[in-house]
Amino acid sequence: MTADTPHPLDPLSAIEIKQVVSIVQKARGDDDTHYIFSSVSLLEPPKDQVLAYLGWNTPSSSSSISNTIEREAKVVLLDRLSSKIHELVVSLTKGAITRWDHPMVKGQPGLHMDEMDEAQHHIRVSQRVIDECAKLGISDMSMVYADTWTVSRHKTKNNMRLSQVLLYLRTSKNDNMYAHPLDFYPIYDFNSCKVIDIEYAQPPDSEHTVRDVPMMNRQYLPEQIGAKNLRQDIKPIHITQPDGVSFKFTGRDLNWQKWGIQIGFNYREGLVLYNIRYKDGNDTRPLIYRLSLAEMVVPYGHPSKIFNRKMALDVGEFNVGAMTNSLQMNCDCVGSIHYLDAVVCDMHGVPRTIANAICVHEEDVGILQKHTDPRGHGSYSTRSRRLVISQIITAANYDYGMYYYFYQDGTIQYEIKATGELNTHALSKDESPHPYGTQISPQLNGQHHQHHFCMRIDPMVDGTANSVAQVDLVPSDLPTGHPGNDFGNGFYLTTTIFDDTDSAKTMADASKGRTWKIINEAKLNPYSHEPVGYTLVSPHTPPLLPKPDSLVAQRATFATKTLWVTPYVDDQLYPAGFYCIQSHEPMGLPVWTKENQSVRNKDVVLYFTFGLNHVVRVEDFPIMPVESCGFTLRPNGFFAGNPAIDVPPINYLEKASCHIG
Amino acid sequence: MTADTPHPLDPLSAIEIKQVVSIVQKARGDDDTHYIFSSVSLLEPPKDQVLAYLGWNTPSSSSSISNTIEREAKVVLLDRLSSKIHELVVSLTKGAITRWDHPMVKGQPGLHMDEMDEAQHHIRVSQRVIDECAKLGISDMSMVYADTWTVSRHKTKNNMRLSQVLLYLRTSKNDNMYAHPLDFYPIYDFNSCKVIDIEYAQPPDSEHTVRDVPMMNRQYLPEQIGAKNLRQDIKPIHITQPDGVSFKFTGRDLNWQKWGIQIGFNYREGLVLYNIRYKDGNDTRPLIYRLSLAEMVVPYGHPSKIFNRKMALDVGEFNVGAMTNSLQMNCDCVGSIHYLDAVVCDMHGVPRTIANAICVHEEDVGILQKHTDPRGHGSYSTRSRRLVISQIITAANYDYGMYYYFYQDGTIQYEIKATGELNTHALSKDESPHPYGTQISPQLNGQHHQHHFCMRIDPMVDGTANSVAQVDLVPSDLPTGHPGNDFGNGFYLTTTIFDDTDSAKTMADASKGRTWKIINEAKLNPYSHEPVGYTLVSPHTPPLLPKPDSLVAQRATFATKTLWVTPYVDDQLYPAGFYCIQSHEPMGLPVWTKENQSVRNKDVVLYFTFGLNHVVRVEDFPIMPVESCGFTLRPNGFFAGNPAIDVPPINYLEKASCHIG
Repeated sequence: MTADTPHPLDPLSAIEIKQVVSIVQKARGDDDTHYIFSSVSLLEPPKDQVLAYLGWNTPSSSSSISNTIEREAKVVLLDRLSSKIHELVVSLTKGAITRWDHPMVKGQPGLHMDEMDEAQHHIRVSQRVIDECAKLGISDMSMVYADTWTVSRHKTKNNMRLSQVLLYLRTSKNDNMYAHPLDFYPIYDFNSCKVIDIEYAQPPDSEHTVRDVPMMNRQYLPEQIGAKNLRQDIKPIHITQPDGVSFKFTGRDLNWQKWGIQIGFNYREGLVLYNIRYKDGNDTRPLIYRLSLAEMVVPYGHPSKIFNRKMALDVGEFNVGAMTNSLQMNCDCVGSIHYLDAVVCDMHGVPRTIANAICVHEEDVGILQKHTDPRGHGSYSTRSRRLVISQIITAANYDYGMYYYFYQDGTIQYEIKATGELNTHALSKDESPHPYGTQISPQLNGQHHQHHFCMRIDPMVDGTANSVAQVDLVPSDLPTGHPGNDFGNGFYLTTTIFDDTDSAKTMADASKGRTWKIINEAKLNPYSHEPVGYTLVSPHTPPLLPKPDSLVAQRATFATKTLWVTPYVDDQLYPAGFYCIQSHEPMGLPVWTKENQSVRNKDVVLYFTFGLNHVVRVEDFPIMPVESCGFTLRPNGFFAGNPAIDVPPINYLEKASCHIG
Repeated sequence: MTADTPHPLDPLSAIEIKQVVSIVQKARGDDDTHYIFSSVSLLEPPKDQVLAYLGWNTPSSSSSISNTIEREAKVVLLDRLSSKIHELVVSLTKGAITRWDHPMVKGQPGLHMDEMDEAQHHIRVSQRVIDECAKLGISDMSMVYADTWTVSRHKTKNNMRLSQVLLYLRTSKNDNMYAHPLDFYPIYDFNSCKVIDIEYAQPPDSEHTVRDVPMMNRQYLPEQIGAKNLRQDIKPIHITQPDGVSFKFTGRDLNWQKWGIQIGFNYREGLVLYNIRYKDGNDTRPLIYRLSLAEMVVPYGHPSKIFNRKMALDVGEFNVGAMTNSLQMNCDCVGSIHYLDAVVCDMHGVPRTIANAICVHEEDVGILQKHTDPRGHGSYSTRSRRLVISQIITAANYDYGMYYYFYQDGTIQYEIKATGELNTHALSKDESPHPYGTQISPQLNGQHHQHHFCMRIDPMVDGTANSVAQVDLVPSDLPTGHPGNDFGNGFYLTTTIFDDTDSAKTMADASKGRTWKIINEAKLNPYSHEPVGYTLVSPHTPPLLPKPDSLVAQRATFATKTLWVTPYVDDQLYPAGFYCIQSHEPMGLPVWTKENQSVRNKDVVLYFTFGLNHVVRVEDFPIMPVESCGFTLRPNGFFAGNPAIDVPPINYLEKASCHIG
């Protein structure tokens, strides 16, 4: 394909964004200044059209469609004066607006980074904020920084787009501001650009007292640590590919080893992978239609006011794609790197290119498989190589590395590395942060929290008609000594295929070694005689600790179950709703699954939540070493055997006796 | 130190083994041929002497001891005629036997690899085995191979050292024999070197029928796959350290970054790490006195005869150290490798050197910590480096890679990579392996099983007086809407310090995000004001699926709990007992903890079991891609902050702008 004929799943280019914005601006007329472009992004074509385009013909599609896929953009406009939302479809093919809706929604559109910058400006000049700062002895407002968290839900003002602002002080230009939190909380309206209130973090039934600002500096930047205090004894490791990389791009379609992957991106989810397939002999077999981090939530456990609203839905509220870092060679990734840029737009509809937003590279990851014949028949050992497709985002204090891995043995893995800064709060002298946090510096509280990441997995395991099964390993019912369990060792596998959305709402259960399996019941493995499938497994599935009727559970209902399965519906993408800021009615998964529906032998979508508990350590400050979590999709009876036995061992390749390859 | 003055914890050298064996042979006299040297290895000096030697002076030790530590060997002799065991202590310092005991034990000593080779020879010439093979159409006994599993426990013959032999056929020289299991099971006595019986794998209350040998070949060696069928598109990755490695050895004491580690090894546990410490400013702080994989058990779930005895305790029964592979450069490890050899001895007391048994190297493992200031104050990103100390062992069909990792942020990690071959059995035509296994090839059954690995952790967190706490994260007791839990988000940390061995017997609980913490109650963190400590955490803690009164639970009681804590006692090393083959009375942990004892503010030892469920996949054959599990020890309030903030970011070091270091 050429630049003129994008792949139907290619993100909008900067040129296309400009075209769309221009079309909308023309149509909109005079009242321009009240509107912001909340989002401008590709409206993904209907799945049956794309399947036909990709050659995965389904009964309801025909290949003739492939020539007629319309290139469309979805545009969300927000009228900041009236708080009204406009949803537009702009056809780039036709050069025209083809839909203009005024949806009634019980939530607010997500935030732009430039809205947050704008907010900081308005907060700094707010007299109420200046007065509060003065009480704390702060007069230089340019040293006060604002992290504009959302209010989660507001008892009376959900028609406004509100932030409860967390403020920090810098004691010098590049000072680590999270060492100096201010203990008052402006309530800011993003639409009117005004501070409408000041709130305080008081416990129930108590008067607030604004705590002093913790003033001990806690730095981590090398120029602050001082060159002579840095470790001097780390000898370089060079990772190079003198013959180049083993992968190849056609447009944004990537081929590596037996894998094929179409790399998408949008302002909200960031990386989206489409059309994931694997070459098995002469067949190319489809595995996944679309894969993305569709939502996340980070609830904090402290029940006091302000803190009890801390439950960032970073994907839908703050737009993970737009928060993507420009990556730096040999810092964020090492080796032979292929970068892709990403294009998002600001609130005025101006495209912004994030250079080096996506990193594609290969890694050696230890042994793939090995066996030594203890009877002198030799030793066989093969190195494992993986393809990494990654991005790193910054959500205020936190930074998340997000890594898709593809392995030679058919395994797909996703890992999130959490790093960056703790969200901190002030403590009074002699105030204990227990049992909700850890004192990480004098009068500085790092509060315990959880991270729940919801992956949307739209599978096509050998076709779109798939089922999902729960697979448990359970002890025998028979007592020890029974003829059927003489020595008491008996345990066995149980497999329950989900018939409907209700039965598919399931929790992780480590006591049963629970995994799930995405299967195609119409196709049996030649050896196991079971449906071909992929196992979904994660050792990182903490339950949502807030109550089932908590505000967190209402707004991020996805996190109350480890797995949900739904029948595929175009435009059902976001498990906590599209307008999830201040969402105040059920959205997404609870709505889609309100009525029980069949999910067996159907085009289905899985929503899988994994994550981690972050019990704050003193060692997480002044910057957090990476903590990691993720999940794995492993072929399980999908192939007729280990698909990686054709990976040559290093010692078999003469020319590569000293190096991998 | 020189070769003449070994470190007190250095393994016996080949010369020392020869000296010991010579002393024993002289003393033993004429009846030589009945005896085998079951084991010859270092008798580790009493802990108080070693602590004094290391400079960790304790009240009960004095530095004067350091000059007088005796170099001693523990020798176990087995009289194969009488089945009697002799336990000797040989002083190398004195050149004499200083103890000679005849212990009465309810188990058998572990197996040598040459005993297993010897067994294969005797089995091949056994007329009963030849007759059974003839019935299956096998006449060339040189193509029949024997894996000599133990019988676990025998109803009447525990005075013999028995194997239930799993037999396989090779159809050509390097054929994958696990594709061709024979369905009859010789019972072999290692002491008399005779096949004493043939058993069959019949289900309860049924006659046995010997199943045919599955004859489909399933190969994985490259010469069998064929050069033209191997992947051609893997471009080399070179990992080099042009300036050399960043670590330094003094004898077997290793210094890397701020870590210090003494590397030990014995025939049973393989790698043993001693005296693990971390340099914190000007202080070197002790963390762990001794760390090793002390035992493991691999129970299978199939309840039929033969299969229900499959519960390999590979450390104590088969000797992980002696089964260690010689590692091959750029196959098993890549980069700049430092190897250590290991010395074990055969059953005749002859030393055997395993070249390149231990691999020491550094790895780049992605980002260590990163933060981008979204307000234009720049991006900070640091690469993580880890030190790897590893060995790979082969236990008949299975291969295990065992990796100790040390990170710059004070984290210690241990990983086991399971690979190699499935243990396979024959199926009749149309016989289903369900629900206890998967058919992985025509008439070939791969049975589901578990791997439980028991780490012995002998900590000294800032000294030997330590305590252990269980740390849970639990939802608030207050209902949503209560003033103390208005939004229902409340959750908090509970910390329970174990007073005694009974309360310390605990299970993993993912629903509470349970971790454990090794603490020194006498020393508080300057910021958290909590005892300094290290958190013990693993996401891989499946419960033992066999019943609490099963034979597995009786012989491998350690696996019935995730954690045990005991007061330190010299010579308590092996949680399932020293003589664990055919163990038929409680040994190890259940005996040591029979009486409840205090473990608070004491020199304590932790036994921590982690592992994995292996639900067999078709893709695990003809060779298994690596499956991994492990645990982590993370500083938690041990330091006054992230100890890795002095690791320079790559982009800060001018000379290393393109490469790590």
